[in-house]
Amino acid sequence: MLSFTQVLEFTGTFAFAISGIRLASAKQFDWFGAFVVGLVVAIGGGTLRNVLLDVTTFWMADPIYFICTALALFWVILFGNYLIHLNNTFFIFDSLGLALFTVVGITKTLDLGYPFWVAIIMGSMTGSAGGVIRDILINEIPLIFRKEIYAMACVIGGVIYWILHYTGVDSTWVNLISGGSILLTRILAVRFQIGLPVLKGENF
Amino acid sequence: MLSFTQVLEFTGTFAFAISGIRLASAKQFDWFGAFVVGLVVAIGGGTLRNVLLDVTTFWMADPIYFICTALALFWVILFGNYLIHLNNTFFIFDSLGLALFTVVGITKTLDLGYPFWVAIIMGSMTGSAGGVIRDILINEIPLIFRKEIYAMACVIGGVIYWILHYTGVDSTWVNLISGGSILLTRILAVRFQIGLPVLKGENF
Amino acid sequence: MLSFTQVLEFTGTFAFAISGIRLASAKQFDWFGAFVVGLVVAIGGGTLRNVLLDVTTFWMADPIYFICTALALFWVILFGNYLIHLNNTFFIFDSLGLALFTVVGITKTLDLGYPFWVAIIMGSMTGSAGGVIRDILINEIPLIFRKEIYAMACVIGGVIYWILHYTGVDSTWVNLISGGSILLTRILAVRFQIGLPVLKGENF
Repeated sequence: MLSFTQVLEFTGTFAFAISGIRLASAKQFDWFGAFVVGLVVAIGGGTLRNVLLDVTTFWMADPIYFICTALALFWVILFGNYLIHLNNTFFIFDSLGLALFTVVGITKTLDLGYPFWVAIIMGSMTGSAGGVIRDILINEIPLIFRKEIYAMACVIGGVIYWILHYTGVDSTWVNLISGGSILLTRILAVRFQIGLPVLKGENF
Repeated sequence: MLSFTQVLEFTGTFAFAISGIRLASAKQFDWFGAFVVGLVVAIGGGTLRNVLLDVTTFWMADPIYFICTALALFWVILFGNYLIHLNNTFFIFDSLGLALFTVVGITKTLDLGYPFWVAIIMGSMTGSAGGVIRDILINEIPLIFRKEIYAMACVIGGVIYWILHYTGVDSTWVNLISGGSILLTRILAVRFQIGLPVLKGENF
Repeated sequence: MLSFTQVLEFTGTFAFAISGIRLASAKQFDWFGAFVVGLVVAIGGGTLRNVLLDVTTFWMADPIYFICTALALFWVILFGNYLIHLNNTFFIFDSLGLALFTVVGITKTLDLGYPFWVAIIMGSMTGSAGGVIRDILINEIPLIFRKEIYAMACVIGGVIYWILHYTGVDSTWVNLISGGSILLTRILAVRFQIGLPVLKGENF
């Protein structure tokens, strides 16, 4: 039977893949290109974490990420136009994915014995690096460097994880509260268009 | 004495390097930049495979890939204009390289004990990821995401490898037939401009 | 107490981070984006070396690189305009960083038992790959492929390292002389706008 985390992970992977496939679609990519971009959003962040932590790449043990991305591609091919009306739904799924992937990344890094500041970086990378690689592949400046708070939501969630962990809160609650804070930060940031200050663009 | 595989590998590396150097040349790269782009096409895919499989990077054991890329650079510097007339020749070499690199990538991944679906992905990556990194370096949208069938030829060859392997065909024949099918698919795709369907580019 | 090398490393990291933050600033990145780009210039080359050599990523053992990049970001936020007048100062620091990172990269690769040609490649990568990743992130063609001699200065310094090492020169002097030659080559290249020949940009 599927656990709650597996359902969340599948949902997050699907939403991440959709985000990649939609952007690839706007650039007239073919099915293969769209599949690759969707896959990269879904597994890119975790893969980068695995490579940097020098552990086995997680997706080689389970074809679920490929199946999930293929389903996302079929979805877009079949219901492309209809997707426009689901924008808000996908935004929620995407934010759920961000929260879940970050918490998973933090936990896995801590399990390997790394200090907390490394875990927060790895968690944020798990959640947001896939989107950066996506933007590189479609030849755009990465969105997360200029728009509403995205990776900073992961960092905030990571710091909350840290505090709760050291105050002895049960790990289930640590996961739920830190994940929830990422979700909430992201939703508030987009709802009220909250971004970090932008550097003055002088050509110095 | 050189084996047949070594001759093929040298030819493929040379053709891949030429493809990178030519594109770098169209962007007014200097000799160093062209060398790096040529090298990346030649060894990028295999390096990515090695990093993901967590084995030693192959080119550190043998400077042949650097020597081969340097020769390709000298070739372009000396005979740049003449290359135009060799377009078809290079296309064949490039397709030979694609076929060989893919088959090598599949075999090496299987030797490490990974399942077949991972081997097919790694094989396709070995053959085609170098071209993706090349396009990122010259700041273009990767060609293989939009044009004639390229990476899909590797996937087709990989599936044929799989079927032949499980029906107990001798490994030499598995290599030759799956490699040949990649070569043939690629040639037919370019000859008849066969591509995958393109996603409708709505800005949804 | 800080060693001389540590002071140099801090200075180089700071200058590399500033170079990334300035370019991110010209592209209207927010503080987070600028931090990431600055960090990538500072640690990208060494991280790539670590991944290819399959050793633990160096910056996970010490948060100094993150602190140093944060300081560089605060510096640019506070004194952005004033930086224009410091162009030459930063150029010197940046070149010092290039020389130091390259020599460190060569030494660490040799310590792992790799041959000299691999060490020179890894040293050059340590010094210059961060700038390439930076340019990919800000969606520009990498500067070092088209402008004054940059990575070739690392190669020259690497060859000098090699010669001195085999003639039995003391390792302190090997480091100083090869590092100095990188610094000198880079300064002369910029002062006299010395570049490598550019490939003729025919669309062949």
